[in-house]
Amino acid sequence: MNNFNFYSPTYFVFGKDRENETGKYIQRFGGKKVLIHYGSGSVIKSGLLERVKKSLESSGIAFSELGGVVPNPRSGLVYQGIDICKKENIDFILAVGGGSVIDSAKAIALGALYEGDFWEFYNGKRIDKALPVATILTLTAAGSEGSTGSVITHENGMLKRAANSDLIRPVFSILNPQLTCSLPPYQTACGATDMLAHVMERYFTNTKEVEITDRLCEGIMLTIINETPKALANPDDYEARANLMWAGMVAHNDICGVGREQDWSTHNMEHELSGLYDVAHGAGLAVMFPAWMKYVMSHDVNRFAQFAVRIWGCEMDFQNPENTAIQGIKHYEHFLQSIGMPIRFSELGAKAGDIPVLVKTLGLGEGTLGSFVKLTEKDVQKIYELAV
Amino acid sequence: MNNFNFYSPTYFVFGKDRENETGKYIQRFGGKKVLIHYGSGSVIKSGLLERVKKSLESSGIAFSELGGVVPNPRSGLVYQGIDICKKENIDFILAVGGGSVIDSAKAIALGALYEGDFWEFYNGKRIDKALPVATILTLTAAGSEGSTGSVITHENGMLKRAANSDLIRPVFSILNPQLTCSLPPYQTACGATDMLAHVMERYFTNTKEVEITDRLCEGIMLTIINETPKALANPDDYEARANLMWAGMVAHNDICGVGREQDWSTHNMEHELSGLYDVAHGAGLAVMFPAWMKYVMSHDVNRFAQFAVRIWGCEMDFQNPENTAIQGIKHYEHFLQSIGMPIRFSELGAKAGDIPVLVKTLGLGEGTLGSFVKLTEKDVQKIYELAV
Repeated sequence: MNNFNFYSPTYFVFGKDRENETGKYIQRFGGKKVLIHYGSGSVIKSGLLERVKKSLESSGIAFSELGGVVPNPRSGLVYQGIDICKKENIDFILAVGGGSVIDSAKAIALGALYEGDFWEFYNGKRIDKALPVATILTLTAAGSEGSTGSVITHENGMLKRAANSDLIRPVFSILNPQLTCSLPPYQTACGATDMLAHVMERYFTNTKEVEITDRLCEGIMLTIINETPKALANPDDYEARANLMWAGMVAHNDICGVGREQDWSTHNMEHELSGLYDVAHGAGLAVMFPAWMKYVMSHDVNRFAQFAVRIWGCEMDFQNPENTAIQGIKHYEHFLQSIGMPIRFSELGAKAGDIPVLVKTLGLGEGTLGSFVKLTEKDVQKIYELAV
Repeated sequence: MNNFNFYSPTYFVFGKDRENETGKYIQRFGGKKVLIHYGSGSVIKSGLLERVKKSLESSGIAFSELGGVVPNPRSGLVYQGIDICKKENIDFILAVGGGSVIDSAKAIALGALYEGDFWEFYNGKRIDKALPVATILTLTAAGSEGSTGSVITHENGMLKRAANSDLIRPVFSILNPQLTCSLPPYQTACGATDMLAHVMERYFTNTKEVEITDRLCEGIMLTIINETPKALANPDDYEARANLMWAGMVAHNDICGVGREQDWSTHNMEHELSGLYDVAHGAGLAVMFPAWMKYVMSHDVNRFAQFAVRIWGCEMDFQNPENTAIQGIKHYEHFLQSIGMPIRFSELGAKAGDIPVLVKTLGLGEGTLGSFVKLTEKDVQKIYELAV
């Protein structure tokens, strides 16, 4: 096991109707003038925003609001939010939505206390302060409700960049599974695929003997695999939604990643795919992950066999562990198909002819990607080809 | 899944030689004048205390020290610690040791900022403030390094009482598995048994469909079961010690307990046993847990069958799930024996004739104990009898 630090100080408020306690928790964490940040009108239509405002009012907390966050959140709205914060002396940001809204809220929290351009923090500038951020989560997938990260796309050049700091980790997050019951099946499945990927990019590692982290990873994966079909078959299945919602947090607050090397190369390869074709992140991962697995499997057949046996219940082939490993990947592909995910380029509308563009945009040059196997440009090209 | 709050803000610093960074982290968490609190001389003999002091000195942090904590820590030393804090304007408590030292440090942290008697907090007085506490853990078992609890025995009447508050949860904890390599086999096994119990008292619940929490529980149990024999066979097995050390924290920071009813009746029944015979807590649990299981099994045979199948690899007997459930308990007993734990009264030196005393001291009267099955005095008596 490698040395590590682990820190996950977000206060989680989980369960039915908990958004009605928002005011109380903002008070507890010191907010007096709040910017409520949200996406499209769905939180208005559903009545959620109204309930949240009512909770703030009954706690005597003043607020402004800013909607309009889009998937892959943009810098333009962040600048607007920062302006509002400065003009109105906002001291607390409340994100009501999914990962995009939360990421946008984190960016505003950074810019609100900075005289310069918030974008500098997305180009590596050291983060020294930020307004406190809290979230009311409406979509199970990104794990941003308990994480330190924020990804923003700058409209000047459409650059997608990330900032990371404990200072933008939500101080509290309200997770009410009821709010996710209205998610369409495709979005539910994309979320589940993303959550699985968050675990798997921590699971396939060169670090040996991290049994506790392996077992926690496996527990989360088994939960996602068992509960997703239930949520698809019956969108109002509260228990399935609740298990998925909490699994999504645990999948990404790094409790299942500590003590080991992690490998986020598939997330990186997928970013190029969703950048070029504007496909959902989860769908892109469903196409790229099996391809990556097939390409790197021989590097550590036993690890893939463990995945096959412990996750998919495969029989271990002690003569040929490779057979077991292959079975595991097949099971994973079948699962993705069963929840309506694409697993090949054509299902995404992606074209084999574009692979050179994807490889080039990834911009590896003479460098490598990932750690489980250090991928060169040529490796990446072959992985994209396997996904065709 | 039940509604719940989850909050685990301790900053964990895990791995080899990390105690040498103590000074840096005390600085980060605002400590200027530290009371170093420890137990017997083992931290002196091992050189650990010296390394810690060196780290503090090199960060320019002043300190006093107070050793002498005993297992089942006593009020007398707590009063001494509080006096030192007040006289010397201590602003930070550093526990170097296992659960007893940490619990004693938490009590001092409470009393240092209070004009009255710290014991009031162990009689239910509301906790409003406390000095920050940090820990350097030397013993894997109690989970106190990441928990809100402290148990102290008052020498006036030998009353054992608990206090709980987020304010005494350690701000940071340093977990270096190397420090546990010198633990004798019996203590290692007692720790493992206690950790398993922490998970099982959350696992056997009437709350249905808490798949994610079940799976995390199972992951932790499997880790403890796989790694304990390795640590016993080779005390210097760093990887086994590391997995156990982190499993001990995760077993008790409540990530494996959220969203469900918990049942701590076995811990309570054991307290009477270790109170009367002065046996190790883990050894007492090894005797009481199988007895409790046998007594309550019929209340939810399928839950015990799940334990048998998922933890012990038993085949499910679909005709008679009860057979499977019984097999699981047998496997658990065999495991306890294999790591050198007692599983019957006689092995502890406990006597059947004392059962009425144990039942009476527990003091249920007309009330009940636990939640999975609400145990009356008569039930408790039968469980003690099963342990004979």
